[in-house]
Amino acid sequence: MGNAAKFADGIFEARAGIGTHEVIIEAPDHVLAMASLEERQIAAVLRAYGERMLFVKKDKRWQSILVYKNEGREAGATLEHVHSQLIALPEVPREIMDEMTGARLFYESRGRCLFCTILTREIKERARLVAETERFVVLCPYAARFPFETWILPKTHMPYFEQCSADDYAELSRCLRATLTRLTRRFGTLPFNYVIHSAASAGEPHTYYHWHLEIMPKLSHAAGFEWGSGSFMNPVAPEEAARMLRATQ
Amino acid sequence: MGNAAKFADGIFEARAGIGTHEVIIEAPDHVLAMASLEERQIAAVLRAYGERMLFVKKDKRWQSILVYKNEGREAGATLEHVHSQLIALPEVPREIMDEMTGARLFYESRGRCLFCTILTREIKERARLVAETERFVVLCPYAARFPFETWILPKTHMPYFEQCSADDYAELSRCLRATLTRLTRRFGTLPFNYVIHSAASAGEPHTYYHWHLEIMPKLSHAAGFEWGSGSFMNPVAPEEAARMLRATQ
Repeated sequence: MGNAAKFADGIFEARAGIGTHEVIIEAPDHVLAMASLEERQIAAVLRAYGERMLFVKKDKRWQSILVYKNEGREAGATLEHVHSQLIALPEVPREIMDEMTGARLFYESRGRCLFCTILTREIKERARLVAETERFVVLCPYAARFPFETWILPKTHMPYFEQCSADDYAELSRCLRATLTRLTRRFGTLPFNYVIHSAASAGEPHTYYHWHLEIMPKLSHAAGFEWGSGSFMNPVAPEEAARMLRATQ
Repeated sequence: MGNAAKFADGIFEARAGIGTHEVIIEAPDHVLAMASLEERQIAAVLRAYGERMLFVKKDKRWQSILVYKNEGREAGATLEHVHSQLIALPEVPREIMDEMTGARLFYESRGRCLFCTILTREIKERARLVAETERFVVLCPYAARFPFETWILPKTHMPYFEQCSADDYAELSRCLRATLTRLTRRFGTLPFNYVIHSAASAGEPHTYYHWHLEIMPKLSHAAGFEWGSGSFMNPVAPEEAARMLRATQ
């Protein structure tokens, strides 16, 4: 309701609608699905994300950068050629602000990173793990909003995506491609979104934060309950989703 | 990230999954669209909402009640017979908490209701008004998330939906039916959701709050940007949506 208060006070008109928007075209050929790309192509896409984030961050008007992908019409894609997008905003939007605030409060009260703590627990319990590599964990998060929602997190604490090394990008490419392949083998052509949550550039360094990539397959529709409450009904338990994805190579 | 912190601390398992869920069947005949119902039928449905809310509130385990409708498969409806739903939760979910907090902070700092202030401004400017009756205003909100998002608000300050009188329900029925008819005449059969935001029952009275009904037509897909940021791209300005709805009787 921050917007509503600004509107009611009549101060909303003063803000200019500025930002930056880039489209990352992921292959020269007319490929439709990221899962069809080779590992080296996906690594090049991830490296391009990082390079563009470093470049865009130089402009101090931008307080946050969101990299995301819409694949398939039902996932909101308006182009069919395999692509992803980068948007830089003059503010920190609600989802990123809430996640950063939660991570900061956890860090301040417990003295350790929220995401590192979750990773330690998930690696020990294994029920929600999809895959584990040297540098990354692929898991279905405990309070998953969507059926088969799957996150990829670096094991090493790293606030910013663009801190990744060439080796990180290469291994992340393998993890991401393997995860999309599992989903495709399970469901066939599947519309999905992913987003990269990286610490905002406003007021950095946010050393308490831990970047991650959230994959959201479009197997269900957000409806009145979800839009009205911000809570999500998810008919597939993350343990079940993880078990099925582990069983699908 | 409240959930994530509870999970990381290992205290999440302790909470039982309790709540109440009711389905309101809106007509004895197999009608598919609420806009096809007669005014008196819709008034009976709205009265039923209020009566069920009063009844459900007697159980002090529930901290909030959400009444909502999903019409059409793309809006998440799994039943086609005209219906709506009521869910009572043992907590105040994020969207309702955020709206209540915003309204409370506005009230505390300005000494007046946020929604009454918005209504005064909207009635004066008229650009976003769809209709105005003796008791209600129908408008496209200033920071609309969705194309043709339309809200109905009582002109009289009223925190709780279930405080409505029989005359309020009758007039709201006319407003709601007329609005759905405008949308249907404009777009044909249109999947949509609506939700009623009424003050939470936890810690009442929340005298600063002002109930309202939010109609969300499904003309677009939330995609990676929306899920990742919590901000919304809306290609139809609310002034344009309101102008088109006013022109469609």
